Amino acid sequence: MAHPPEYPYRLFAPGPVPLSEGVRQALAEPMIHHRSEAFKKILRESLNLLQHVFQTRQPVMILNSVGSGAMEAALVNTLSPGDEALFIVAGKFGERWWKMGQAFGLKCFALEVPWGEAVSPETLTATLKKRPTIKAVFCQACETSTAVAQPLRESAKVIRQHAHESLFVVDAMTALGAMPIEMDEWGIDVLVAGSQKAFMLPAGISFIALSDRAWKMATKSSMPKYYFDLAAELESNTKNETRFSSSVSHIRALHTALQESFAGPKLARTIARSQVLARATREVCTQVYQLQIYPKAPSSSVSALLIPEAIQDKNLTKILLNKFNLFIGGGQDQLKGKIFRVGHLGHISDEDQLFFVQALGLALKECGWAAATDHSITQAVALTRQLLTSKE
Amino acid sequence: MAHPPEYPYRLFAPGPVPLSEGVRQALAEPMIHHRSEAFKKILRESLNLLQHVFQTRQPVMILNSVGSGAMEAALVNTLSPGDEALFIVAGKFGERWWKMGQAFGLKCFALEVPWGEAVSPETLTATLKKRPTIKAVFCQACETSTAVAQPLRESAKVIRQHAHESLFVVDAMTALGAMPIEMDEWGIDVLVAGSQKAFMLPAGISFIALSDRAWKMATKSSMPKYYFDLAAELESNTKNETRFSSSVSHIRALHTALQESFAGPKLARTIARSQVLARATREVCTQVYQLQIYPKAPSSSVSALLIPEAIQDKNLTKILLNKFNLFIGGGQDQLKGKIFRVGHLGHISDEDQLFFVQALGLALKECGWAAATDHSITQAVALTRQLLTSKE
Repeated sequence: MAHPPEYPYRLFAPGPVPLSEGVRQALAEPMIHHRSEAFKKILRESLNLLQHVFQTRQPVMILNSVGSGAMEAALVNTLSPGDEALFIVAGKFGERWWKMGQAFGLKCFALEVPWGEAVSPETLTATLKKRPTIKAVFCQACETSTAVAQPLRESAKVIRQHAHESLFVVDAMTALGAMPIEMDEWGIDVLVAGSQKAFMLPAGISFIALSDRAWKMATKSSMPKYYFDLAAELESNTKNETRFSSSVSHIRALHTALQESFAGPKLARTIARSQVLARATREVCTQVYQLQIYPKAPSSSVSALLIPEAIQDKNLTKILLNKFNLFIGGGQDQLKGKIFRVGHLGHISDEDQLFFVQALGLALKECGWAAATDHSITQAVALTRQLLTSKE
Repeated sequence: MAHPPEYPYRLFAPGPVPLSEGVRQALAEPMIHHRSEAFKKILRESLNLLQHVFQTRQPVMILNSVGSGAMEAALVNTLSPGDEALFIVAGKFGERWWKMGQAFGLKCFALEVPWGEAVSPETLTATLKKRPTIKAVFCQACETSTAVAQPLRESAKVIRQHAHESLFVVDAMTALGAMPIEMDEWGIDVLVAGSQKAFMLPAGISFIALSDRAWKMATKSSMPKYYFDLAAELESNTKNETRFSSSVSHIRALHTALQESFAGPKLARTIARSQVLARATREVCTQVYQLQIYPKAPSSSVSALLIPEAIQDKNLTKILLNKFNLFIGGGQDQLKGKIFRVGHLGHISDEDQLFFVQALGLALKECGWAAATDHSITQAVALTRQLLTSKE
């Protein structure tokens, strides 16, 4: 391991995230067969708990793929080659879905939103008025590359009003479980999520649910598919089985994580925790360390802060890793070296958060950033302590 | 858990398989980021060790899917809609590949081999002579549903001789690491395997490698694909990264399993162990318990035994589970209730195997099978002991 031994490794990325002891123990359990009654019970309970996280009465399915597989499943199950689809492209993951649409022969339109900004209902309305025959609108709940939260509820309303036949397809990878999302109530037609974010699991499985409207479109889809055929998966789920061999270790860990952090009222508490961590991070960074928030519509799952131009050559993220064994996300693609990203997901304790603000202050100081001083670091710790306790 | 507490749970299925302590510990390790240097090293070493298991100089890729995803990747990366492909259908998994071919618009021909039998070089030759323009031949190394080992080496020769342009695409899911397979030497063009078989891991990741001929065909493939795009995956691998978020826990466990059981000379020892367990199982079942082996060409990864007609209504597999906490595979589809299947994969100790032959004897006796007596069970134990020690 390349990490210094003084500090334990701390993961403040927007996924993967720190795991709980319970989840780690579940991962380590001896193998059992996926067609055993014991496993079927775990699978069924997990599928039921997922409906609560999705806030849906529709069945939620577990896919054995990372999130991009669920993004592909959303697309190939509901549409047919040549269908018109609109992709809200506001960062790297919006681009990915658009490229996927191209790969599968959709007639793709991109609604390009400047990086760091959310799509406005007015822009979406204007776009849909020009293309009322569109079959689906694809959008990120939180664009992980820019830490922008998209206005899902408002977008859903606009789509219902101006593109009657269109599905609203949402990638809630870095969002579900960390910000409020109500699939049925808001009118989301396809919702996808991944395990390595708010679900507090290793990467490797993903989740998807379809509205009645989406299932109806699925019956007409002529897109070639086999591994990601959701109708076949759903049929297996009625027997409390997955269609192919189940990722038993992963699903047992999911079962544990759902019980630990998402069952009943825990869902709201888990979302609130992300919101508290997000607020604490942003207030300290702006008020104490004089940094600027990058996105115009910040999410509660991940925060992106601009690295001041004067210290962009100092490699802040590397200092945090090498000196403090603390992993934060850098900027991706056009934002490389210009922002850093801090996750508010997974098992982040108050102590972790306090360590983070100190380490960040010391790293900024080492970079020569004037607002980071011994005095301001003390202030940052005090403010963090206050924000963490006042809100829980 | 529905299992009785007297005996520890024993898994004798043809996947999933018992995990080692080391693998279980690796699964439980705290999360690290998939773009960290520490993880990149683990990934690179794993990819290199996989080449040894595949016996290939070609790069091996890790897919975040169960085996069926790798089967799909093999198909969609090398072929184009309308291409002619031959599927050797000798059981459930041959059928699956054939259905996949249909789903993706190939012109599919099935070489149907009676369940329980291997394809003969003569039959394959005759088939290919009729269709010399075929683009790919798909075959299972071991058809898991029937426990038949297919003659890969001979089939490869026939294909090279009679279908010059055809790829030989092999699903070695329940085979690689449990029987000798040499990708380069034998002339296999695409080889796929899954984690929950001889690799002794939970289900959830799969492996694939392509020959030069297959990579060349991949450049011409017009099949729509994104998640399973192997050229994109390979490009990421050159940076010691996976294309999407890595299944970090799974790949660390893979790294452990490869070092424990497959590095250097361990590969041959692991294969030999499956062969010893297979021989011990079959000799005891036939010589002592008077059962018949189902497949005409038995594999060393899984054995299928016919359940005598007289006791087919007694539910042998359920007795083994309920009384002895021992999970064996039943028959699938048309073989349901007619055979049972015993895996020789994963961490099966001598003690486990001795327990198995006793439990099987007692269960057969309870079913009323005359050849299973207290005396024959004692014989079975002695013969097992002898066969296990004589061969290692």
